Amino acid sequence: MTPLQLYTYQTPNGHKASIMLEEIGLPYDVHIVDIENGKQTAPEFLALNPNNKIPVIVDPDRDRTVFESGAILHYLAERSGVLLPGSDAERIQVLSWTLFQAAHVGPTLGQLWNYKIFAPERIPYVIDRFAAEANRIFRVLDGQLKRQSHIAGEAYGIADVMTWPWIHAGLNKLGLALELTPNLARWYSAVGARPAVQRGLLVPRLLRHESAVA
Amino acid sequence: MTPLQLYTYQTPNGHKASIMLEEIGLPYDVHIVDIENGKQTAPEFLALNPNNKIPVIVDPDRDRTVFESGAILHYLAERSGVLLPGSDAERIQVLSWTLFQAAHVGPTLGQLWNYKIFAPERIPYVIDRFAAEANRIFRVLDGQLKRQSHIAGEAYGIADVMTWPWIHAGLNKLGLALELTPNLARWYSAVGARPAVQRGLLVPRLLRHESAVA
Repeated sequence: MTPLQLYTYQTPNGHKASIMLEEIGLPYDVHIVDIENGKQTAPEFLALNPNNKIPVIVDPDRDRTVFESGAILHYLAERSGVLLPGSDAERIQVLSWTLFQAAHVGPTLGQLWNYKIFAPERIPYVIDRFAAEANRIFRVLDGQLKRQSHIAGEAYGIADVMTWPWIHAGLNKLGLALELTPNLARWYSAVGARPAVQRGLLVPRLLRHESAVA
Repeated sequence: MTPLQLYTYQTPNGHKASIMLEEIGLPYDVHIVDIENGKQTAPEFLALNPNNKIPVIVDPDRDRTVFESGAILHYLAERSGVLLPGSDAERIQVLSWTLFQAAHVGPTLGQLWNYKIFAPERIPYVIDRFAAEANRIFRVLDGQLKRQSHIAGEAYGIADVMTWPWIHAGLNKLGLALELTPNLARWYSAVGARPAVQRGLLVPRLLRHESAVA
């Protein structure tokens, strides 16, 4: 097959796509979109995603362009037959938890990143509010992982790929911790030990320095 | 069929589900979850959605419980055969724009709602930042609606149902406007004129007063 084309940068959302590509094993090429220098608003990138966010994938053999990491992971799971359960009942659970990541985990930790690290002034009310919501989200995931091995069921799947890079960023960049969420801690270690996850985190190799979040 | 069971409240996310139910025409019962009095954290509701958010639907005949509005709309579209295109190429576009709503439109306008209306103090940097992002999102949608009749293609579908209640809230509650986005304005009027949209906005009928957002 013609390699899939991945447009990405060194961010948690980018790593969802690169980890997934490493998991499924289909060939792909990497295009670095330098979001620290505004390349995501170039006309050629806006033609791929009008919302100017990485990641994006293009599948030349099927003439598809897909943006939003949750849609990319569903597309790649369908394309490869990997990491998505077979029954309709299980699939709707996967979609619910994929959307939980997209609507809650990502936006909350992304805002915490801005207000804790990038904002011109530190505003305690705002930082505390997003940190409290992040901790609530960690507890929701912990409860889910107390009942079952992985986020959307017993099997490892795309809801886990969606979520892991943001938990990783929360621990390494945002001062969040797993002491009070032992089930989330167990899952974080197990998923992080997967070779595909470790490889995916290296995509794209850094050009200059540890980069900002999208 | 046994009626679908909708757990909801008078919010934009609740209205996505009630509008969709009105569009598809399947029978449903409404359960009011009074989020202004903490009923979303009652054990019986957490058993339906561990993330304590409305809306949730239960489909007794198929023994399914679905949370996250994006997952609910996909489920109801599959269940009814309504508002979802048939081809894989079109469906992945719908999923991308469903996730765009869940990850960008909803979180941004939801945060603007908090910081503009509910926060104990008005912080201009924070309000201005979320308002600027809301206006950027309006321009993204305007560009999409300049190229085609509806958000994910020519046909009205679940990406439109996802998005309309939040645009409606942005105009009526958050001081946003459509003067600079004429294509979004045209779509907002056309979708808002649909009888199912008007009916869905009345679910659940208000118990006491115009309510807060979830």
